[in-house]
Amino acid sequence: MTRRRRHATRPDAAQKPPSAKPSTAGPWIYGRHAVAAALANPAREIRRIVALSEASEAIAAFLQEGGAARPAPEILDRRALEALLPAGAVHQGIAIETAALEALDLEDLLRAIPETGAPHILLLLDQVTDPHNVGAILRSAAAFAALGVIVPEHGAPPVTGALAKAASGALEAVPLLRVTNLVRCLERLKEAGFWCVGLDSAAPQSLEDLDLPPRIALALGAEGAGLRRLVRERCDFLAHLPTRGSLASLNVSNAAAVALYALTRPR
Amino acid sequence: MTRRRRHATRPDAAQKPPSAKPSTAGPWIYGRHAVAAALANPAREIRRIVALSEASEAIAAFLQEGGAARPAPEILDRRALEALLPAGAVHQGIAIETAALEALDLEDLLRAIPETGAPHILLLLDQVTDPHNVGAILRSAAAFAALGVIVPEHGAPPVTGALAKAASGALEAVPLLRVTNLVRCLERLKEAGFWCVGLDSAAPQSLEDLDLPPRIALALGAEGAGLRRLVRERCDFLAHLPTRGSLASLNVSNAAAVALYALTRPR
Repeated sequence: MTRRRRHATRPDAAQKPPSAKPSTAGPWIYGRHAVAAALANPAREIRRIVALSEASEAIAAFLQEGGAARPAPEILDRRALEALLPAGAVHQGIAIETAALEALDLEDLLRAIPETGAPHILLLLDQVTDPHNVGAILRSAAAFAALGVIVPEHGAPPVTGALAKAASGALEAVPLLRVTNLVRCLERLKEAGFWCVGLDSAAPQSLEDLDLPPRIALALGAEGAGLRRLVRERCDFLAHLPTRGSLASLNVSNAAAVALYALTRPR
Repeated sequence: MTRRRRHATRPDAAQKPPSAKPSTAGPWIYGRHAVAAALANPAREIRRIVALSEASEAIAAFLQEGGAARPAPEILDRRALEALLPAGAVHQGIAIETAALEALDLEDLLRAIPETGAPHILLLLDQVTDPHNVGAILRSAAAFAALGVIVPEHGAPPVTGALAKAASGALEAVPLLRVTNLVRCLERLKEAGFWCVGLDSAAPQSLEDLDLPPRIALALGAEGAGLRRLVRERCDFLAHLPTRGSLASLNVSNAAAVALYALTRPR
């Protein structure tokens, strides 16, 4: 396997690695799955728990399962609870005020990769701006045991309740890393033994036909625009998803799910 | 292969087949992909075309490609255009007022199945209520050449601009059938040679391990609740998606995409 690479040498290993910035103030998290997972995560600081009376039993059960010391739930009426949340939030009667999770550093993540259990997959999202898509991708990352999801500091949505709801608990299970520069991050990943696969519906090669290395950085671009040139040029492979219909393009979270399955299924 | 079936015999073939009801008044369709596909669909009646001035060239190009006779585009300012659409619609400067597509009858769809090109896949959505999910599933159905998407008349979202936008043009390519009774529809599909596979994260068997027939009705349930009992009992197989992580469940549109890929990839 040879790298499809414009650069003959790796960048200087002494170069400053991309760093994950601390995330912003924690969101209100709502919806049963997202709240249950946050309550079960001992690393998640929770400042307030509010629920409609019909959800009080569910909250009690979540707290018992979670085990960690938590503030006592406040039972609110619908109006008071909804005043705390964005308009239209699908809260299912339950919401919690949280602190942001401590941001994981890329170097910490790389050090923690186990020796076994390959393929090890990192997802890189280039300009994916819809929080529902990022949330659904986190959820798929959890389902297919990806190591984490990396987004650029600019051009990615903040962690909101809508993102957490779409992630359906996966925000607690899968690191979401924000890096200042996606291209530099890719170079660092290559140093760490990752091969970068960029999804591109116009690529001649199918993702199915790749001879896969154990460490894979899968880059997905914005819908329509695709990967930006600088990111695309850093990819070792460009590949399309093995679709067979007239419309080849999938929603970006659907593309991520199919790619994760294609990369992880036994061959 | 033997059917996992509670019923020893097929229901009476003379039974009234489930019929697709005519859909409601057509939606405003917006967003470039969705509008371009609608303009290119000669079966789609279009009553009005509106655009921001910066999108007038795009509209002209779509009209030229489409070829059908269409009303002249009206150039509006942002305020006037947005007054026609739901709040927050991501219109990309382009919107069209449409008539609903003529509803396809299940019997017509069955008659039109080609002899070649198997697997032939129909998707059945049981209580999938989010228009973005239904739209994304239509898009995946187009990408994997599924025959159509079937939803119950009650418990499925109407065709709105949001659904059409999420479908990104697939609404013009993939029939969306509404049936009065999903269970009766399943029985009819079995008569027509389909085997019904229900996705169920708790099923012991993986979708990958199925010995697949050429005609497949893939049933997906609401998130959380899953397939309703009556639908589940009609399935010939229940199978889980081959995930490998701690959180096994995917967003329903992501699950549909992975299942479509798993069912259609060369074995």
